[in-house]
Amino acid sequence: MDWVLLAPLSALLSIVFGGYLFAQVHRVPVGSPEAARVSRAIKEGANAYLRTLYTALVIVAIIVSLALFFLFDVWTAAAYVFGATCSALAGYLGMQVALTANAKSATAAKQGLTAAFPVAFNAGGVMGMAVVGLAVLGMSVTYMISREPEIVLGFSFGATSLALLAKAGGGIYTKTADIGADLVGKVELTLPEDDPRNPAVIADLVGDNVGDVAGMGGDIFDSYVASVVAVMILGAAHMAKDPTAFGIHYVIVPLVFAAAGIVASIVGMLFVRTTEGENPTRALNTGTYATCVAFALLSLGIVYLLEVSLAVFWANVAGLVAGVVIGMTTDYYTSIEQKAVRTTAEAARTGAAINILTGFSYGLLSIIPPMIGIAIATIAAYAVAEAMGVPGMYGISISAVGMLSVSGMVVSSDAYGPIVDNAQGVAEMSGMHSEVVQVCAQMDAAGNTAKAITKGFAICAAGLTALALFGAYTETVHLRVLDLLRPTVIAGAFIGAMMPPAFSAMTILSVGKNAFKMIEEIRRQVREIPGLLEGTADPDYASCVRIASRGALWELVGPGLLAFSMPLIVGFLLGPAALGGFLAGSILVGVVFGLFMANAGGLWDNAKKYIEDGALGGPGSDEHKAAVVGDTVGDPFKDTAGPSVNTLLTVVALIATVFAPFIAKYALPVLYGWL
Amino acid sequence: MDWVLLAPLSALLSIVFGGYLFAQVHRVPVGSPEAARVSRAIKEGANAYLRTLYTALVIVAIIVSLALFFLFDVWTAAAYVFGATCSALAGYLGMQVALTANAKSATAAKQGLTAAFPVAFNAGGVMGMAVVGLAVLGMSVTYMISREPEIVLGFSFGATSLALLAKAGGGIYTKTADIGADLVGKVELTLPEDDPRNPAVIADLVGDNVGDVAGMGGDIFDSYVASVVAVMILGAAHMAKDPTAFGIHYVIVPLVFAAAGIVASIVGMLFVRTTEGENPTRALNTGTYATCVAFALLSLGIVYLLEVSLAVFWANVAGLVAGVVIGMTTDYYTSIEQKAVRTTAEAARTGAAINILTGFSYGLLSIIPPMIGIAIATIAAYAVAEAMGVPGMYGISISAVGMLSVSGMVVSSDAYGPIVDNAQGVAEMSGMHSEVVQVCAQMDAAGNTAKAITKGFAICAAGLTALALFGAYTETVHLRVLDLLRPTVIAGAFIGAMMPPAFSAMTILSVGKNAFKMIEEIRRQVREIPGLLEGTADPDYASCVRIASRGALWELVGPGLLAFSMPLIVGFLLGPAALGGFLAGSILVGVVFGLFMANAGGLWDNAKKYIEDGALGGPGSDEHKAAVVGDTVGDPFKDTAGPSVNTLLTVVALIATVFAPFIAKYALPVLYGWL
Repeated sequence: MDWVLLAPLSALLSIVFGGYLFAQVHRVPVGSPEAARVSRAIKEGANAYLRTLYTALVIVAIIVSLALFFLFDVWTAAAYVFGATCSALAGYLGMQVALTANAKSATAAKQGLTAAFPVAFNAGGVMGMAVVGLAVLGMSVTYMISREPEIVLGFSFGATSLALLAKAGGGIYTKTADIGADLVGKVELTLPEDDPRNPAVIADLVGDNVGDVAGMGGDIFDSYVASVVAVMILGAAHMAKDPTAFGIHYVIVPLVFAAAGIVASIVGMLFVRTTEGENPTRALNTGTYATCVAFALLSLGIVYLLEVSLAVFWANVAGLVAGVVIGMTTDYYTSIEQKAVRTTAEAARTGAAINILTGFSYGLLSIIPPMIGIAIATIAAYAVAEAMGVPGMYGISISAVGMLSVSGMVVSSDAYGPIVDNAQGVAEMSGMHSEVVQVCAQMDAAGNTAKAITKGFAICAAGLTALALFGAYTETVHLRVLDLLRPTVIAGAFIGAMMPPAFSAMTILSVGKNAFKMIEEIRRQVREIPGLLEGTADPDYASCVRIASRGALWELVGPGLLAFSMPLIVGFLLGPAALGGFLAGSILVGVVFGLFMANAGGLWDNAKKYIEDGALGGPGSDEHKAAVVGDTVGDPFKDTAGPSVNTLLTVVALIATVFAPFIAKYALPVLYGWL
Repeated sequence: MDWVLLAPLSALLSIVFGGYLFAQVHRVPVGSPEAARVSRAIKEGANAYLRTLYTALVIVAIIVSLALFFLFDVWTAAAYVFGATCSALAGYLGMQVALTANAKSATAAKQGLTAAFPVAFNAGGVMGMAVVGLAVLGMSVTYMISREPEIVLGFSFGATSLALLAKAGGGIYTKTADIGADLVGKVELTLPEDDPRNPAVIADLVGDNVGDVAGMGGDIFDSYVASVVAVMILGAAHMAKDPTAFGIHYVIVPLVFAAAGIVASIVGMLFVRTTEGENPTRALNTGTYATCVAFALLSLGIVYLLEVSLAVFWANVAGLVAGVVIGMTTDYYTSIEQKAVRTTAEAARTGAAINILTGFSYGLLSIIPPMIGIAIATIAAYAVAEAMGVPGMYGISISAVGMLSVSGMVVSSDAYGPIVDNAQGVAEMSGMHSEVVQVCAQMDAAGNTAKAITKGFAICAAGLTALALFGAYTETVHLRVLDLLRPTVIAGAFIGAMMPPAFSAMTILSVGKNAFKMIEEIRRQVREIPGLLEGTADPDYASCVRIASRGALWELVGPGLLAFSMPLIVGFLLGPAALGGFLAGSILVGVVFGLFMANAGGLWDNAKKYIEDGALGGPGSDEHKAAVVGDTVGDPFKDTAGPSVNTLLTVVALIATVFAPFIAKYALPVLYGWL
């Protein structure tokens, strides 16, 4: 039997289940005309951004697909376009549901948490199902038509192009709007959060969706596909060497695992139930654990069905366990109940500087458990594979697939975050009762934890995926050894190590620059629109949305060119081994920076919330002002630079893998026998 | 002829020249009784710290030398103690001169810059000569007695133990005092800088000496010795393989280079002349360039005299050029005239957060040229060596020696920094005329640039030295290949990559914790000592000095254990290859963090100075307050965590190299044939 058929079947299942969730959300009423009006404004703003994003994507896709057509063939180019389209479509569908669910969830909150929570979670679930469903459908269709993992690599390359634009662009957008709205609105004009008189308030609410729904969805779609493709390429390479010991099932097993991950995610989502007054975080965590258990059981079954080595199961479990360790670490370091957040908040007593230094330090310390977790998972996956006669690097790649297989559930929890954040905004802006706002705030707190955990998960998954692609790359250029005692490998590693900091810096500077423009625009509106602060005239929300959208995508030109060109420059100038070193350097430093930035940002955010909840003088105190500075520093760390590093890692690794055949032939050191 | 004799000879020359410089400083009068009183208070405080430091050193030295005695032999243990003693002695001598030169330089400033500058620079020169003189004397005596590079490695290990204590401890000390003095003194009590009523003012002035004289001296002593030893070990290993092609001269050439570096530094120092009204930075730069040129010429002569391959000369030049690139980059990114500092200052208009984010980003961007510089130097040194029949890794190690050979001049400029910083403090505290203070301020600005350049230099030198030790380590454990496709190497690299961030975080948290205690003590004194703020009663300076001293060294226990234990844990648990990966990971991430932190810190400091010089609203404006927050965040970056990373890199690499013979034999994977 052709087991690969399970993949499109389960993709269809996810689309059906997504449709069911959509229907559940659809039948909830939007509520009052005020709520509908606010929700509509957010939707218009978000769709304006999506139009700009997709225009940018079309331009990039035309250029890259033409290049692929001339360098490779029409199939690779078509797969590239197909990958970009599937990823964009998943983001679009998820966004549309998220954008109606905010008002619906706020309205349902009038009947309490048990009514409001499912609306938001089901809407998030549509995004989760769209991401894994379209990813698995796209990969399996591409594979079944071509039967060549190299063509599926083209699909993955398309997905990563969208991810770079959606994640880094969304990251710049969301923080431009957030910082602008905060610095002028809250600090200068002393308006409360989500006040309709703030001209940037809609841009800010749009930003949450843009960054955490479309951006994070695109990012995980990218890693998810790339990890599967890396295993397929390694599997095919080993099959070519020894077809009897290493059959076609080793090529398709990651696709079947992804299919099982969809089923496991649906099972897990059924476990997400909350009762009145309970912390919704518990419900989300239960869902994640249930998904992990279900997936582990299913993957064991698959290993028997496909008659592949049991090592594949164990490598897979190693990745799954590492994912859980990372989630727990992030939870610990960013939890309002734990020492890191509280010490950081305490430090605000002596002002903003020590608050920032303390959060910075705990952010750095927070990388220790995940780094050790990745180290152990790598050794375990490799050792168990080799012990059972499977190539070790294949085992490491399988562990990346294992970690990402629960993506359906992870994306659902993550997308729940901006929906409830927006629900709170809609509730406040449409003047709902304070008890309703309270329910929304409770859901929002759980959403923040979910978003923080997803960020840690996403960066480690990107790290393992990049490691898997690194394996696929070395296999493609026939590097049997990557010797760190060779000068080109050392030099490549130094240049690769420079990439994540450079990329982060460029995106953060973009946020600063755009926020500056946004601040000028808000000040202009306050000055020029009579009656704005009195609430008798509406601000021009659309102009703020425009500034955030355009700036975000234009600013990507520099970092995007850096990400696309450096692997090619290093590869062609210094050779295939140097590019291997480059990938290793970028992965090492990228995981460090990605984890540190995501966790430090979450930590400062919650230190501020801890004070806002009444600790240390409470809102308005000097401690609070100091903590707000820390939070503002952390904003682009956790929502722009940190998450963009994930995409950077998969982008450079994919470019290396896609262009590997050319680099192996035409690199200068290869042509001239250098080094 | 035994050319190695040149080393002790030139060491004696440096001691004679140092004595001459000391005599020059000695005959300058201290000046008024007030100035003498302030200077004496600083000296007492500094010596109190040195006593604590040396007590800690004795404890560490007893434990480690006993371990070395039992594991190796009495010679290694004795060399260890000798190394620690020489390094401590260099620091002690330099400190004593620096501590008298502050008042003398301030007094001389009454006659203008041309009178004051030589006093400060000559005093810095004593430190410079003490560091290189005692290092070369110690190494050559150890080598001439033992004729074994492994015993000289013991000497280097002793120097690194002192460096860890002096640099990280000094870094914590200086920022504890600085932040405490600023946050309470300047912000709460609105006292001016260096006001005698501030109880922490003496501790702050002591801190400059402790961090930048004793700490930086110990750090460069450490890298300087380690780079020479790494080449000696590699040379001896290659000589053992092929004594005809690779004679004893390849073992001793780094010592002879170091000897030439002393002569070149003396030549360079003679070029340091300033005229009235001129920026002293130019004089210091002229000295550095003259040293580089003189050294390049001398090293070419040595290559001919010793009849070693011309490749040794070129590899050496590659390191020298990389050092200059790094200096220029640091100068650009931290210069008050350039875009990075000005944009960061402009960003203070929207508050502290964007100021911090902008400085953070430029700090990250500043690593690009040095990383590319190291990459090019590595390839160039390796390629030229291999092309001329010398092992490539030996070439890379020689380039580290080349970079560090100008240390005599670099340490002199660097030690000049805290002397003129203190001179300004003495001038203000002893009530000298504002024109005198102005001259001191002018000298201080040049000192800040020199300190910033030294930091960039020191981290890159530490990076190259660690790379050289990495080569020596792999040679000692007979690793001919360090394969990044092996799981233990990957895992080791992930664990190694975690070290610099973890170490940085621990030292920064220590600063925060100690500064907190210091702040409480200052507040207590203000509360309990009547007449303190009116200037009628003296504060208890000594108690602030005590808090800074004790805290700094106690806080080192955690980071010190981490640095000492992790290489051994990784080595014995995961094997020699994993430890190789560990070193590579720590070097890559360490250079990134070290450079970033040093440069970002310098950048924020100068952005604040730019505003204090009258830009953007000038002192006291909101922009200034925002920039002060940035500067405070940057303080432990540039003076605690960043520079400590250097020492961390050499410490872990030296531990790996020292214990390499045991790891090669007794590591678990070796014993049980794992992995």
